[in-house]
Amino acid sequence: MIIATTKASMFSATGLTGVTGTLRWDRREGAARILAAVLALSFALPVCAAALPSWRASPSRAAIVEFVERVARPGSPDFVAQEERVAVFDNDGTLWAEQPAYAQLFFAIDRVKAMAPEHPEWAENETLRAILSGDISAALAGGERAFMEIIAATHAGLTTEEFAESVRAWIAAARHPATGRRYTEMVYQPMLELLGYLRDNGFASYIVSGGGVEFLRPWTEATYGIPPERVIGSSLRTKFELRDGTPVLVKTPEVGSVDDGPGKAVNIDLHIGRRPIAAFGNSDGDLQMLQWTAAGEGPRLCVLIHHTDAEREWAYDRASKVGKLDVALDEAERRGWTLVDMKRDWSVIFVEATAALERRPPSRAAAPSGDRAAGVPTRREPASGAPEGSPTADPAPTQD
Amino acid sequence: MIIATTKASMFSATGLTGVTGTLRWDRREGAARILAAVLALSFALPVCAAALPSWRASPSRAAIVEFVERVARPGSPDFVAQEERVAVFDNDGTLWAEQPAYAQLFFAIDRVKAMAPEHPEWAENETLRAILSGDISAALAGGERAFMEIIAATHAGLTTEEFAESVRAWIAAARHPATGRRYTEMVYQPMLELLGYLRDNGFASYIVSGGGVEFLRPWTEATYGIPPERVIGSSLRTKFELRDGTPVLVKTPEVGSVDDGPGKAVNIDLHIGRRPIAAFGNSDGDLQMLQWTAAGEGPRLCVLIHHTDAEREWAYDRASKVGKLDVALDEAERRGWTLVDMKRDWSVIFVEATAALERRPPSRAAAPSGDRAAGVPTRREPASGAPEGSPTADPAPTQD
Repeated sequence: MIIATTKASMFSATGLTGVTGTLRWDRREGAARILAAVLALSFALPVCAAALPSWRASPSRAAIVEFVERVARPGSPDFVAQEERVAVFDNDGTLWAEQPAYAQLFFAIDRVKAMAPEHPEWAENETLRAILSGDISAALAGGERAFMEIIAATHAGLTTEEFAESVRAWIAAARHPATGRRYTEMVYQPMLELLGYLRDNGFASYIVSGGGVEFLRPWTEATYGIPPERVIGSSLRTKFELRDGTPVLVKTPEVGSVDDGPGKAVNIDLHIGRRPIAAFGNSDGDLQMLQWTAAGEGPRLCVLIHHTDAEREWAYDRASKVGKLDVALDEAERRGWTLVDMKRDWSVIFVEATAALERRPPSRAAAPSGDRAAGVPTRREPASGAPEGSPTADPAPTQD
Repeated sequence: MIIATTKASMFSATGLTGVTGTLRWDRREGAARILAAVLALSFALPVCAAALPSWRASPSRAAIVEFVERVARPGSPDFVAQEERVAVFDNDGTLWAEQPAYAQLFFAIDRVKAMAPEHPEWAENETLRAILSGDISAALAGGERAFMEIIAATHAGLTTEEFAESVRAWIAAARHPATGRRYTEMVYQPMLELLGYLRDNGFASYIVSGGGVEFLRPWTEATYGIPPERVIGSSLRTKFELRDGTPVLVKTPEVGSVDDGPGKAVNIDLHIGRRPIAAFGNSDGDLQMLQWTAAGEGPRLCVLIHHTDAEREWAYDRASKVGKLDVALDEAERRGWTLVDMKRDWSVIFVEATAALERRPPSRAAAPSGDRAAGVPTRREPASGAPEGSPTADPAPTQD
């Protein structure tokens, strides 16, 4: 397992933007960091790029630093007012790992299994039946809509508060099927540093995810320093009800928004009402978000995280079913967007695991074999340990 | 015409929250105000209520000030962390006047008239035909859905940027049918002071309006100091398209969200993801927003603006078709919510008109007679000047 060696800059104190409440930060550096943040925000001085220690010297790092200095340094001919420094980030595959399948799918699988006894009718549903039989590939074959179908079946009927509580409980306990880490430990350390670097330079960063907005909000602030009001995602419609005189919002099975592909540009406009000047994604689902960002006037930064590291993470692009990067990769080459080569550009992949993390073998394994992309190296097969009914195991990335 | 006598505190410098870019403020007081704002935000000291000069000493003013001091003063047993200090404001009838009909309706009427020659099929549509014949009462008879129908017919097909441009042009030129003022001069001075007072005490204020989000955003920052990302409203769905390789978002006639009644609670949850601790409305359309706010734990402030001033503005509540306040008025009495009596509590109603405002008779008058509520005094009939085809004029409120 690769463990991040640099955690000091994981979060920076913002002091003034209202997100410090739940952030962990190093008390010993506290005063100096607050002062630095106040100065940075008050006078908009660019904060130096030493804040990106896990980024090796590379064209991608240079492009990011050059862009930030262009837009954030007073007197720069391309200076951008602070309120217009909006950056948008895809989540799955951009801020945290998305293989062998989206975390929210594992959350939903756990809910399907727990709720199945009360829902005999699910045996009639192809997608849900596939999950219950452990065949995630089949369940995923329906694409984004099948994913939303699973989400709707398992999330609907809960109040928003009940749902948030179920997410909090799951995210604190669940383990990634391939690595045994908590999902919040599948977060990319270099991207945390990048979020902090942008924050220190007056950017407002938003998550714009194909995942459910209510699946994200319970943990994004503690994990990324991104508060609930800056999280945009797919959603089910909710319904206002009075229960014994107390208002609740109940999740319905009706899809409100699929925040993927063109939906990302649509939702950025609906929720933010400003065009971002920087966008970060990793798949074709991020194409329109990057196009929308790129089409504004003035300096723009469009970045694709390219999953090239089969040893420390996963290597996949054009042929992957999860996080497919094909059309957007061509577009990046044509438009000169910035490609981050994870293997080459990042000295560390994942955040440091919490001290309390008990090492243990994967409690559940999952590897939709159909999702194994051409070009993704064959991994060793699991020796054992996959619980009955679990999908085929895709073992943890190896440490190099 | 009533003109606000106090403008100094109309906006306060925030310095750090990214909204100063387009705000007007008094340069002579600039440095002192920035310093005060920095201190207020950094150390969360309550800013004193002298910031509410247009509010007479009254129970409503006392309730507001007491609440703000409870939640914003460090050491208060009811202290609320700054990031949780979320306030939500209805717009029509709460931040600006909504009589004799919503401003966006007049915007849409102007568009219907301009676009009608190209749309002979509108003669078949009951609502649009009513507008073209000057019968706004009939057009409004279909309620919220008719309103959205008008909006869809006249707004759809434009790109979001074309639409924003049409709003900017209209809001700069259009005059209120009863007063001849610009619509942004139909804004309530005491509410601007309240927005500034909350801002100075670390609150993030959002508009949550039944009006269209894209109708609001082009002018809310300059008018209220509320930036685009804090504006929530009704919306038509938009569609991402590439036109000659350039991405655009095109408004469709399909309703995305009706941000009224229960829709306000739903959208607050969807867009903000935090429950507000303060809510301000004026009609039954704000009931669920106030209920949702009130139901949270800890101190809450729920306020209804009661239109009681037939001389300086309009007096209406239970029987009005526009801004009907009936069920929510009962709920306010039952729950002890704060009622603002506009006639009694406000020394000034409207913001000061801009110096450039040329006084002229109403260019268009409108008074859906069916909207004249019981209890709203009969106004003098217009002497003349209503263009042919215009609805019956409802003359300007008189100065007392």
